[in-house]
Amino acid sequence: MNTPVDPVQLTADLVKCPSVTPVEGGALQLLQDRLSSVGFECTRVDRGGIANLFARWGDRGHARSFGFNGHTDVVPLGDEAAWSVAPFGAERKDGWLYGRGATDMKSGVAAFAAAAIDFVRDTPPDGAVILAITGDEEGDALDGTVALLDWMSEQGEAMSACLVGEPTCPEHMGEMMKIGRRGSMTAEFIIRGVQGHSAYPHRARNPVHATARLADRLASKVLDTGTEHFDASTLAVTTIDTGNPANNVIPAEARMTVNIRFNDAHSSTSLSEWLAEEVEIIKAETGVDVETATKVSGESFLTPPGPLSDLIAAAVEAETGMRPGLSTSGGTSDARFVKDHCPVVEFGLVGKTMHQVDERVEIAQIVQLKAIYSRILKSYFA
Amino acid sequence: MNTPVDPVQLTADLVKCPSVTPVEGGALQLLQDRLSSVGFECTRVDRGGIANLFARWGDRGHARSFGFNGHTDVVPLGDEAAWSVAPFGAERKDGWLYGRGATDMKSGVAAFAAAAIDFVRDTPPDGAVILAITGDEEGDALDGTVALLDWMSEQGEAMSACLVGEPTCPEHMGEMMKIGRRGSMTAEFIIRGVQGHSAYPHRARNPVHATARLADRLASKVLDTGTEHFDASTLAVTTIDTGNPANNVIPAEARMTVNIRFNDAHSSTSLSEWLAEEVEIIKAETGVDVETATKVSGESFLTPPGPLSDLIAAAVEAETGMRPGLSTSGGTSDARFVKDHCPVVEFGLVGKTMHQVDERVEIAQIVQLKAIYSRILKSYFA
Ligand SMILES: [Zn+2]
Ligand SMILES: [Zn+2]
Repeated sequence: MNTPVDPVQLTADLVKCPSVTPVEGGALQLLQDRLSSVGFECTRVDRGGIANLFARWGDRGHARSFGFNGHTDVVPLGDEAAWSVAPFGAERKDGWLYGRGATDMKSGVAAFAAAAIDFVRDTPPDGAVILAITGDEEGDALDGTVALLDWMSEQGEAMSACLVGEPTCPEHMGEMMKIGRRGSMTAEFIIRGVQGHSAYPHRARNPVHATARLADRLASKVLDTGTEHFDASTLAVTTIDTGNPANNVIPAEARMTVNIRFNDAHSSTSLSEWLAEEVEIIKAETGVDVETATKVSGESFLTPPGPLSDLIAAAVEAETGMRPGLSTSGGTSDARFVKDHCPVVEFGLVGKTMHQVDERVEIAQIVQLKAIYSRILKSYFA
Repeated sequence: MNTPVDPVQLTADLVKCPSVTPVEGGALQLLQDRLSSVGFECTRVDRGGIANLFARWGDRGHARSFGFNGHTDVVPLGDEAAWSVAPFGAERKDGWLYGRGATDMKSGVAAFAAAAIDFVRDTPPDGAVILAITGDEEGDALDGTVALLDWMSEQGEAMSACLVGEPTCPEHMGEMMKIGRRGSMTAEFIIRGVQGHSAYPHRARNPVHATARLADRLASKVLDTGTEHFDASTLAVTTIDTGNPANNVIPAEARMTVNIRFNDAHSSTSLSEWLAEEVEIIKAETGVDVETATKVSGESFLTPPGPLSDLIAAAVEAETGMRPGLSTSGGTSDARFVKDHCPVVEFGLVGKTMHQVDERVEIAQIVQLKAIYSRILKSYFA
């Protein structure tokens, strides 16, 4: 029997790599060295200045290929002076390990790497274990997990199921896993009217009035009240700007940005059509011109409850005593890319301090997380 | 019989004084010299760095004291390179006199000064003729006509009727006089909500949504459809600003400015009360806090059609063949201050090029304007 990999030490080693997006910082190299030494076939899949690591133990294209996905890049330090520890020091104090990336998500990567190494070494499965780890999740994510998945398709590499190791628990270890995410899209509107004098509004066409009405109509719309697995879709007008300092002038133009988080009752296409209809109504009512630019961060997706979520929930319950809820809440994650390739579920530890000053992880949770991931591997290949 | 004062030459002499607010530029001194020499009692009523001139011929406090009000200050040159003439050159070309202030309103001041000098010299009336001329109409007007009126009250000086010589004719000499003006007020709102993440709007309180609804409600309100002598009151939301660059963030605060031009169906007090009611509705519906700051430029006022407007209309018709319409349109003028002291009417020439590059006045109109003002004096004291 080999000495098990210590996931806490591995987390600390990773935290010490200053891998603020897009810098690799030595984190992927460290993982590659550890994985190679136990027989993982490792490939650096770098694209657009971003480092990514693909690692596979077992046969390429095996029907049972369990994958882990995660990232080693971290967000910037924020107010560095406000940190009470060295942000890349991996200091341990009162049962916690401190540092940027401690929860998001070097502990998650360390836990699944440690679990995978022990597993293939101690109980080599009939199948493949894949680790797809990116250095671009916190950035614009164009050359991160997408690059890995593109490369895998070209190479005939595939996962039959995937677990994303992002933090998913709001307060207590084990309480929540994610089986999907709402989609997210942003629409930017430029509303053009006709400039004029405040005393003669009938000679002008006020774009601020048109913008206000459009904003109120959009914000008042109940998109839905939630679906079987999703919270209600939401819309936020995040900014309206005119920049007109003269109160005796009606301005020519106003701008507005709207962000929509949408569930499986919608798609970015159906929502774009709805926005266009609303814009037509406002144009007809007020005579303004409207230019709309839409950016889709991701469609909504769902891995319906089934064998994969059951297996993961059982492992979590066995280790923590808590049956995780099946959630689709939160922002976006790289699972939005993986879902086009195989069933994908997200489970990780408590993410409370992610992106904050003095980011930290409970050391006991790292140990527990490795145990959960180990149990998942055993169940999957049982 | 004395040689009549040439109002065109006097206009030219005044245009040559570079009296951009708040600079006196020699304009009031020039008038004082001319008026003193024919027996006007002149007093410089300077306040807050602004020069103003009070001139009276005849007895102080006489029951028949006809007053003229006007200003010698001018707006800045704007794009100086775009002028085809020297802006303070008073050049004459093809029947026009060019220069900053040529229409607004050195020609008006020259016309009433010339008329007044001739009148008191040739046909000394039983009564008083007053000229209240300010150097601060184009600026914030705090120390201009208001200063003159304050000083007059202190000194027991009073006008029984007043004519403001601002340009009042849109296209043709004689077509319009003003018997009142709409009021103007500006309200600035700061709408404070609770910041949050776009994905969790229920944990935030979006001030942009509240602002949009408030703006739409205010802009949709029909304040009135006009009154006997006034156009409809109007409201313009002139700007909404948030300045939030992050589409995943719901901001804490938004700002909005509203300008209202109101007729005699309203007052700044009644409108402030209405705005406060609308704010309360939005606060109750959305939970935001709203801070409101209101600035009143002037209340609406009316000198109801009667002896004074009849007298002036008759004089205009006799000289131009056109019966002037009784209007209350346009922005504000110093008549808003005078109306608290005596009946006030505005009549002047065509103001088309006022505040523009190559401002100019038709020379024939200056001559006609002096003739109208002379006829008004004769009628008033007949
Ligand atoms: Zn993350
Ligand atoms: Zn003027």
